[in-house]
Amino acid sequence: MKILVLNSGSSSLKYQLIDSESEQVIAKGLCERIGMDMGKIKFETQAHGKGELDIAMPDHDAAISDVFNLLTDSEKGAISDVSEISAVGHRVVHGGEKFADSVVVDEKIADEIDELSDLAPLHNPANVMGIRSCMKLMPGVPQVAVFDTAFHATMPAYAYTYALPYEYYKKFGVRRYGFHGTSHRFVTGKALDMLKDAGVDPASSKIVTCHLGNGCSMAAVAGGKVVDTSMGLTPLEGMVMGTRCGDMDPAIIMFLEKKLGVGTKEIDTIMNKKSGLLGISEVSSDMRDVEGAAAEGNAQAQLALDVFVYRIKKYLGAYAAAMGGLDAIVFTGGIGENDKNARAAICKGMGFLGIDLDEDKNKSMRGPADISKDGSGVRILLVPTNEELMIARETAALV
Amino acid sequence: MKILVLNSGSSSLKYQLIDSESEQVIAKGLCERIGMDMGKIKFETQAHGKGELDIAMPDHDAAISDVFNLLTDSEKGAISDVSEISAVGHRVVHGGEKFADSVVVDEKIADEIDELSDLAPLHNPANVMGIRSCMKLMPGVPQVAVFDTAFHATMPAYAYTYALPYEYYKKFGVRRYGFHGTSHRFVTGKALDMLKDAGVDPASSKIVTCHLGNGCSMAAVAGGKVVDTSMGLTPLEGMVMGTRCGDMDPAIIMFLEKKLGVGTKEIDTIMNKKSGLLGISEVSSDMRDVEGAAAEGNAQAQLALDVFVYRIKKYLGAYAAAMGGLDAIVFTGGIGENDKNARAAICKGMGFLGIDLDEDKNKSMRGPADISKDGSGVRILLVPTNEELMIARETAALV
Repeated sequence: MKILVLNSGSSSLKYQLIDSESEQVIAKGLCERIGMDMGKIKFETQAHGKGELDIAMPDHDAAISDVFNLLTDSEKGAISDVSEISAVGHRVVHGGEKFADSVVVDEKIADEIDELSDLAPLHNPANVMGIRSCMKLMPGVPQVAVFDTAFHATMPAYAYTYALPYEYYKKFGVRRYGFHGTSHRFVTGKALDMLKDAGVDPASSKIVTCHLGNGCSMAAVAGGKVVDTSMGLTPLEGMVMGTRCGDMDPAIIMFLEKKLGVGTKEIDTIMNKKSGLLGISEVSSDMRDVEGAAAEGNAQAQLALDVFVYRIKKYLGAYAAAMGGLDAIVFTGGIGENDKNARAAICKGMGFLGIDLDEDKNKSMRGPADISKDGSGVRILLVPTNEELMIARETAALV
Repeated sequence: MKILVLNSGSSSLKYQLIDSESEQVIAKGLCERIGMDMGKIKFETQAHGKGELDIAMPDHDAAISDVFNLLTDSEKGAISDVSEISAVGHRVVHGGEKFADSVVVDEKIADEIDELSDLAPLHNPANVMGIRSCMKLMPGVPQVAVFDTAFHATMPAYAYTYALPYEYYKKFGVRRYGFHGTSHRFVTGKALDMLKDAGVDPASSKIVTCHLGNGCSMAAVAGGKVVDTSMGLTPLEGMVMGTRCGDMDPAIIMFLEKKLGVGTKEIDTIMNKKSGLLGISEVSSDMRDVEGAAAEGNAQAQLALDVFVYRIKKYLGAYAAAMGGLDAIVFTGGIGENDKNARAAICKGMGFLGIDLDEDKNKSMRGPADISKDGSGVRILLVPTNEELMIARETAALV
């Protein structure tokens, strides 16, 4: 069946139309500048290639209507009628503690997702707008919410509990949730298949999945279930990211308040938008730029790389401790899939855990692939992620 | 020679008079409520036992004069004249990047320590008061500052750099400093001696020192030099402590600001005074109380223990990754030295690193002792800390 996968932002909408049997992308695109004077839709179909359309989209209803028009366009489209779409899978960032799995959305559940907006004020409201628009524009077609947090719902309490007054957990839901769950789930599935071939029993497997993109997160996955992950209540915690600081002494916020003479709103922006690779290097948030500058001798760019790599190494060790061992590391995301230098640096000096990277395979192979040496105690896997396909699979499975 | 060791707080003063040859404590005591209407001095000498004195101490000058009077008292004292004190070693919390070693203090250095008060506003000003009082009351006697941060000064930049805008490091000194350095240094010295006997070369040794008390910190020490530590810009970062939260998503501060309707000053107090073991358990900040409650079936107390232990395990794994292996773990501090249950829980399931605790030795032995099994790949050492003795040693070495 044909599944439409939607990722609704506050002023943008990404879509993919996926055939759930062949797992092929029939059409995809991106609506930008929703709610502004003039917007743009970039689109692409398997049959007709790429195109662009300048069009005003006053709201998400309009944007989705325009997507339907494009999908059913007799010349540029991919289907003849919207009724060919069997179901829609929506990316929803925060499922809180309520949603440990994907769910078919009705009015009540849409309200519940909306109520979780406290935990993801920038994302959940936009996600719900996309869901409500589809409920209105295609009545009777199942709308499925697939949560970024859901794959992490198996974490034990000792891993998700912060050492704060316990009432904040009970009253406000302050705990580690984790994000990128759809990606971690996708690559875990593929990795467990690959490990089976290597003689590792999925039921007792201990793997660490590294989603390294502009946002970065890692997950400790034991027996196919997440036992810990690096992002927390919000996607700020954890590793060094493009512009996010990740882990730091929380008291730095109070220190900077005094030193900079600004409030926490501005510091929040600094931690989310001006930190990470960009903050240390003062060059760019893009790993390729930072690596380029480091290669030309920029010491701050080199330091940014070193901190980035070092913190991943520490998480690898920490997660091996969390699981009592390690069978495999999985690299995915833009950096994880494409940056052989970062992978080599991360694996260097980690022989005590049994990590032994094959330098040649690391340089030449593209995922999915095992890039560890034949005798490596820990398999090192390269697995391209595909969150949209995972959402389509989850959606197809539910309808 | 006789070394006076002083730890000056804002309204308190701890002292020990130590014979640097025999390393015996000749006298010690604690002045409380300095600057208040009425204060108290609790004192003890090797020769005459314990005593108490109710006395008003308007300032640190007065308190130190009173200590001198007690030390030279013909009936209760330990020395016949203040001139017998060859030097004073002062505990100073923050040495910033300026002080990587202990130093004999002159006026200029006293000013420099004072200038670091930004980084330790609760401690450095009081430490400097103690130093200045001694300079005034015993002119010509060397005053030595021994910094809590100094042993950590060998950390590489990739370990001490936060992923924040780099200018905050350059302008304000925002970086990881680490604390409890005097304790980590003391137990490292002892541990390296013990490891030499076990055939580990100190120059290539990889150890993790765990200072577990009301405040908790860990350090990765390679070849006798710190390469990473869990406390950061302030002593808030890192492990779960009696009342401190340690590591958490920094965005939680902004979330709590909104939810609680309070400012960062109050949240700072919450993170420092109402979190940690106390916060999760809602029982006590004292490990013994929390363990007692857990044993009686209190689920939150058990959770507090589980989080405490789990985070230490993760740091052990992370620091093994930081050093590329692990030769020994060192337990010290009130919990580390005395809590066999916590030690057993920390070592459980860590066989993948070669950690193999001897349950019997763990139960029966007191430090200094090796409580690992004979064949354990990682030696597990119990080493009672002695910060005052370390300060006396540093002081004696400098004068």
